[in-house]
Amino acid sequence: MTEFSVEALRKGDKLALSRVLSRVEADDESGRAALDALFAFTGKAHKIGVTGAPGAGKSSLVNALAQHLRRAYADCRVAIIAVDPTSPFSGGAILGDRVRMPDLQNDPFVFIRSMATRGALGGLANTTLALSQVFDAAGYDYVLIETVGAGQAEVDIVNLAHTTIVVDTPGMGDDIQAIKAGILEIADILVVNKADLPGADQTFRNLVSMIEMGYRGASRVYSGHHRQAETLEAQPVEHEGWLPPVLKTSAINAQGIEDLEQAVQKHRAYLRASGAWHAKETGAIRQSLNKLVIEELSANWKKKLPAGLYETILQSVIKREISPRAAARALLAYNSE
Amino acid sequence: MTEFSVEALRKGDKLALSRVLSRVEADDESGRAALDALFAFTGKAHKIGVTGAPGAGKSSLVNALAQHLRRAYADCRVAIIAVDPTSPFSGGAILGDRVRMPDLQNDPFVFIRSMATRGALGGLANTTLALSQVFDAAGYDYVLIETVGAGQAEVDIVNLAHTTIVVDTPGMGDDIQAIKAGILEIADILVVNKADLPGADQTFRNLVSMIEMGYRGASRVYSGHHRQAETLEAQPVEHEGWLPPVLKTSAINAQGIEDLEQAVQKHRAYLRASGAWHAKETGAIRQSLNKLVIEELSANWKKKLPAGLYETILQSVIKREISPRAAARALLAYNSE
Repeated sequence: MTEFSVEALRKGDKLALSRVLSRVEADDESGRAALDALFAFTGKAHKIGVTGAPGAGKSSLVNALAQHLRRAYADCRVAIIAVDPTSPFSGGAILGDRVRMPDLQNDPFVFIRSMATRGALGGLANTTLALSQVFDAAGYDYVLIETVGAGQAEVDIVNLAHTTIVVDTPGMGDDIQAIKAGILEIADILVVNKADLPGADQTFRNLVSMIEMGYRGASRVYSGHHRQAETLEAQPVEHEGWLPPVLKTSAINAQGIEDLEQAVQKHRAYLRASGAWHAKETGAIRQSLNKLVIEELSANWKKKLPAGLYETILQSVIKREISPRAAARALLAYNSE
Repeated sequence: MTEFSVEALRKGDKLALSRVLSRVEADDESGRAALDALFAFTGKAHKIGVTGAPGAGKSSLVNALAQHLRRAYADCRVAIIAVDPTSPFSGGAILGDRVRMPDLQNDPFVFIRSMATRGALGGLANTTLALSQVFDAAGYDYVLIETVGAGQAEVDIVNLAHTTIVVDTPGMGDDIQAIKAGILEIADILVVNKADLPGADQTFRNLVSMIEMGYRGASRVYSGHHRQAETLEAQPVEHEGWLPPVLKTSAINAQGIEDLEQAVQKHRAYLRASGAWHAKETGAIRQSLNKLVIEELSANWKKKLPAGLYETILQSVIKREISPRAAARALLAYNSE
């Protein structure tokens, strides 16, 4: 990546941005070099993960939140990374809820990136982190990351977000309670979307009671009844813990989005005041650094290995002639020479 | 681990087995040493993953399959590894479908191990692989691994299985179609459990048509209509690809279990004949070996680092004074000395 294209990207050139995103997603040498060159300009964007079961209306919510942010803060830039399920026959088609976001696509301060996950699942979180760093360096204030819950991949992805919004909806049924349970744990803000549907109050109460059951256990400092969206402003920022608020929205009607945005800003203030923002950044950088070091160590070691030795030793292990540890010792003997 | 305890474990001492399993799950030095000592005795067990959405009746199915195997093959040993969801407030309680398996618990040739996943999610697949190796070395012919789908963690776990059974059930709703899609891709055998419930035929047809849509695309060699369970025996073993059969079961009534077991044996025969069994074993061993090597490389590198240097350099990166690559280079400079 030349200095020129860093310049272009920093000046808001969307074509330059798009090219860098593609290289970074491909994770080739030019992508890695670009990421490294852009690193100095990162650290400002607020990364917001939006997750929940299929059909919860995550895309609509992301759409509504992005529009609200654009209206509320005239100069702000908003990036959206949509992480689709990997299946060749889902691809959003089965769900039928992929919102095309027409209003956003004409907004020069909005950039939407859809990420194909097929074949890259193992490194999905890494790729999402890298793409959000590019947006960060390109001056995007908010990076909204939409992912279909649940599972480890989603947990990994939202771990990189500063604020995680978990979207639930009435009538999802008890079958997926356990899936819900898994993603509730990672929620900073809970949303009952489609709140105009029957059963919304029940879903709301269920979520509130799940939180009151204290799923974060000892780490939660909390007493008294749960506060609803209407009294959110009365909720003090708790430095020793964050109690996820439960909000009702109807994203397609743009209802409840302002409260949601306020909750996001309150969470940001909490992260800043408590040091959690800094801790998240430090953790992410530590992880990137370790990954680079291990890749390099591994590549250096492989270079020193005599040709064919690895496969010969692997075959001995497969035949149970030697144990994996003995094999590792034999393979590492060449590293110290 | 002394030779004595290897002996005891190999002779069927359940207490010795239980102790080794605990050490291996803890992944401490004694656990690692035990795993290494036992490695020579591994490679025989048929590992069968059973996954699907919560409420599909996976535990009942595992229970029924284990009982059937024990009846069908008098001397066979069956191990069950139950991987529970990580959430402190699910823990099987919300689901309410945790089968206690009374018949199995009195069978001396059956061993049931419940795995706590909390705090070990990142290494869940590794731990499951390690536990199944212990069972393998202890002479268990079948290792049934039950895990709640879906997500990357589940995909990782079932990747270590030879045969993956995906359990669906009528009335799960379309909300989780995309989740289904994700786990259907990994299925070697599809089961519609609770086939006595209304809607079972519809679910069956949906699964068959999903398969006919060809979710494995070009890798599938297939033409003609999909074969049902009743005509399973007429299905030739396809060396160039395996077409997952769709079966109906009612696990709590022990119905359809014999067909399921036959499908498992056919899949085993396919794996053996096609070389896929050997390829899976090779892949798993390669992965274990690489993990050991990288851990050792990383530990050696850390030992050579001057005290405090890592944190100093990390802080420079956090302050954006240097890039992650430059930091990695600086940290690795000490490795070659």
